[in-house]
Amino acid sequence: MENKTSIQEAIETQEVLVCSLKTKNASKEKIEEELAKLLELKAQLGGDDDKHSFVLKTPKGTRDYSPKQMVIREKVFNIIVSCFKRHGAETIDTPIFELKETLTGKYGEDSKLIYDLKDQGGELLSLRYDLTVPFARYLAMNKVSNIRRYHIAKVYRRDNPAMTRGRYREFYQCDFDIAGQYDPMIPDAECVKIVYEILSQLDLGDFRIKVNDRRILDGMFSVCGVPDEKFRSACSAVDKLDKVSWAEVRREMVTEKGLAPEMVDQIGEYVKLQGGQNLAERLLKDPKLSHSEQACAGLTDMKLLFTYLQLFRATDKVVFDLSLARGLDYYTGVIYEAVLIPSGPGSGGDETVGVGSVAGGGRYDGLVGMFDPKGKMVPCVGVSIGVERIFSIMEQRTEACAEKVRTTETQVLVASAQKNLLEERLKLVAHLWDAGVKAEVVHKANPKLLSQLQYCEDAGIPLVVIIGERELQDGAVTLRSVSSREEVEVSRAELVEEIKRRTVKALLLADA
Amino acid sequence: MENKTSIQEAIETQEVLVCSLKTKNASKEKIEEELAKLLELKAQLGGDDDKHSFVLKTPKGTRDYSPKQMVIREKVFNIIVSCFKRHGAETIDTPIFELKETLTGKYGEDSKLIYDLKDQGGELLSLRYDLTVPFARYLAMNKVSNIRRYHIAKVYRRDNPAMTRGRYREFYQCDFDIAGQYDPMIPDAECVKIVYEILSQLDLGDFRIKVNDRRILDGMFSVCGVPDEKFRSACSAVDKLDKVSWAEVRREMVTEKGLAPEMVDQIGEYVKLQGGQNLAERLLKDPKLSHSEQACAGLTDMKLLFTYLQLFRATDKVVFDLSLARGLDYYTGVIYEAVLIPSGPGSGGDETVGVGSVAGGGRYDGLVGMFDPKGKMVPCVGVSIGVERIFSIMEQRTEACAEKVRTTETQVLVASAQKNLLEERLKLVAHLWDAGVKAEVVHKANPKLLSQLQYCEDAGIPLVVIIGERELQDGAVTLRSVSSREEVEVSRAELVEEIKRRTVKALLLADA
Repeated sequence: MENKTSIQEAIETQEVLVCSLKTKNASKEKIEEELAKLLELKAQLGGDDDKHSFVLKTPKGTRDYSPKQMVIREKVFNIIVSCFKRHGAETIDTPIFELKETLTGKYGEDSKLIYDLKDQGGELLSLRYDLTVPFARYLAMNKVSNIRRYHIAKVYRRDNPAMTRGRYREFYQCDFDIAGQYDPMIPDAECVKIVYEILSQLDLGDFRIKVNDRRILDGMFSVCGVPDEKFRSACSAVDKLDKVSWAEVRREMVTEKGLAPEMVDQIGEYVKLQGGQNLAERLLKDPKLSHSEQACAGLTDMKLLFTYLQLFRATDKVVFDLSLARGLDYYTGVIYEAVLIPSGPGSGGDETVGVGSVAGGGRYDGLVGMFDPKGKMVPCVGVSIGVERIFSIMEQRTEACAEKVRTTETQVLVASAQKNLLEERLKLVAHLWDAGVKAEVVHKANPKLLSQLQYCEDAGIPLVVIIGERELQDGAVTLRSVSSREEVEVSRAELVEEIKRRTVKALLLADA
Repeated sequence: MENKTSIQEAIETQEVLVCSLKTKNASKEKIEEELAKLLELKAQLGGDDDKHSFVLKTPKGTRDYSPKQMVIREKVFNIIVSCFKRHGAETIDTPIFELKETLTGKYGEDSKLIYDLKDQGGELLSLRYDLTVPFARYLAMNKVSNIRRYHIAKVYRRDNPAMTRGRYREFYQCDFDIAGQYDPMIPDAECVKIVYEILSQLDLGDFRIKVNDRRILDGMFSVCGVPDEKFRSACSAVDKLDKVSWAEVRREMVTEKGLAPEMVDQIGEYVKLQGGQNLAERLLKDPKLSHSEQACAGLTDMKLLFTYLQLFRATDKVVFDLSLARGLDYYTGVIYEAVLIPSGPGSGGDETVGVGSVAGGGRYDGLVGMFDPKGKMVPCVGVSIGVERIFSIMEQRTEACAEKVRTTETQVLVASAQKNLLEERLKLVAHLWDAGVKAEVVHKANPKLLSQLQYCEDAGIPLVVIIGERELQDGAVTLRSVSSREEVEVSRAELVEEIKRRTVKALLLADA
């Protein structure tokens, strides 16, 4: 302790010296020299007392949700869950970690981003990377061959975070999947319809849902001369087209993946193409592509997808886009991805620029078979909503409009204007709780009335019950509206009903 | 591939050999020798094709939640969250992992149960062990000195699981905490009241909430002659009294903790005591205990707690129990724990035996200060509901009463009796979705009417809309009640309203 005190004194002396050198405009070198000594002294002190020297933060790429952010999160989840339930989904949950081997061989080049747990004896575990692989494991383990389920939970990726744009290492996914043997493209079309409904209801501005098919991509690679074993890596190169230019992707395919430039240029012609049902029809007659059985199967299904989406009144936002590839290994058929369209100049919003994809998914008919001991296949198609990016947009909006967000639902505060009424306040608030009223009381023996009213203003509590000696004698209370400041006397017997009557309208409005 | 085929052939030859040795009653040694060769060959093959050889399971001590279990989970969460909101709480969320150093030094002997993440470069991380330490970190980091928050999330402990009794390595906690400087025991009493309300509403049978105070325990240890540095370990020995006998705890204190037998016997006299406010009054006059300032402060507050709990009408389930200790290091004042009381013989239930504590908590005034750079204290008191044990009980009950649980909320299935009406079915179901009706359609081009009706029976869908050529011409549909089999014709224009009218009552009943 004496040692620490003497260092503390040395620091103070040194601080005075540095300060005086600065005011005296001493040479830069001299100041830096003395400053270095000061920093060293401070470091010595820190070393003795590391209890308070640690970093107070959340891990890289993660964040806390404050009460205000939770209000936004709940609102977004409610919209998404209502949609999933409207489409007949049930829900499941799985552990946050899986056996390491469960995740092995499912994610291609992205596997390096998986978080492993430390080997503390026992099984080797990894944090889940998405909700799709645990879902497939669940189906195989429980021999479920038929389900329509949603799952909202956190997943983990050791990626480079870009938190202002909603890219985190811990983030929520909201997944809806249909497993089972059905007629072609009906479940697939329902998944696209769900993305359409959710993005419309979230009211994030205009959006597009790009669709493609892994079989069309593979057929395209094949007719352009790409060898089979390079399909997956060609695919992940094309997948980057939403972030980088064709020139960049071309370079990667030629120099890194070792594809011949003329092959790559042919691919370049195809991946430029965008359209609707007509494009699928045209490509079915394409001199090269029509030679690929795979491509034709994909294109025929694409036509069918558009037919169903027309019946679902969802084609206005859907684009058949041959550059859409999606990185993950497990897709086998249709794939899709939704992006927000930044609104034009003057309409006040380039806030969504760079947010990128907000939903994605596709068909993965082989994944469950990878888990089943007998390799039994369960065809699956699903969609995942990228809510973190949506939260980011909504949070920016809420801040921009400076709207006051309530983070509690308290209907009434039990207050008093006089001293020594703590016991009466506690008795009354318990009576309200027992009657199902959301009520608070200030946890002080004798709080000032003004501070109790101020608390209501700050927290957005709409009503105050005020008790005093006179009210107690009369078996009544004063009920005050915080916003209008109007007061009425209400009998104890009628209090609960009166509070409910006065707050039900506000609650209904809040729910809407 | 050839190599694999030749191994396969060798295996088959060897299998025939082993088999024939067995039928010929060859010597045990000879059979074992050839069996070993067979197993080695199989192992070689397995190495080539390990895709299907892995274990299909969730990690030890974890489980999936099936749709039926999710229904129970949601029901329990709804009751708990309503109670927290009734008491004015807002909610926050924190990452599933924290910097390792954030958790260091907070859990005493239990620290060995913390899950660490593998060091993959970057920060050292651990999975959260409870929600209290992350909450304290959140308060210090955001300089919050005043909040009433709830947090429902999973926590992780590498403990020995006992899953049938609801003890898992990954489990939910439902925490409610009040942080801030208030008058003594008012927030503490509200926390106990919350436990009382939740356990009453969950309707799990009779329960008791044991209360004690760390200061009373420390005072007791002190007057019995336990040296200061052994308080915490004496505490964790006493904490085991709900699981093992006093004789066992006594042995641990004497032989493992090295306390003198006569000290331990004195402690034994105290920890036997149970009572209410009277016991606190009596102990304030106890010849030994009254010499401890700490004990007296605790006992005075205990009296106050009972006074407030009386106003809250909650004393009938609350017991002042000197054997209650709670394992965690960070408690500084009142502590409490709720246990279910197994119902008597003949009343049909020892299902709750062994379930143990279902809620616990206490005051921890020092924890936030451990995180604050300047050591600034924020007094806190809170409660944690142990929902996994509650889920276990509810799941057993649901199974026992064989009640049918719906796992979806679908109001209507769009069906047809004739072929070639897929497009009409898809158009109608989309119309219903867009109108906010929860609707499904079977994903087959031409499903049989009977199988569509059977699907409704199985899934508990109450209504079916049936379309046919005649109905299409008339601009109408047939609306059928699945349970009564009654059918009525409804015009397309009135369909949405009619479905909502017929299902709103069912939904209200389900919510109640």
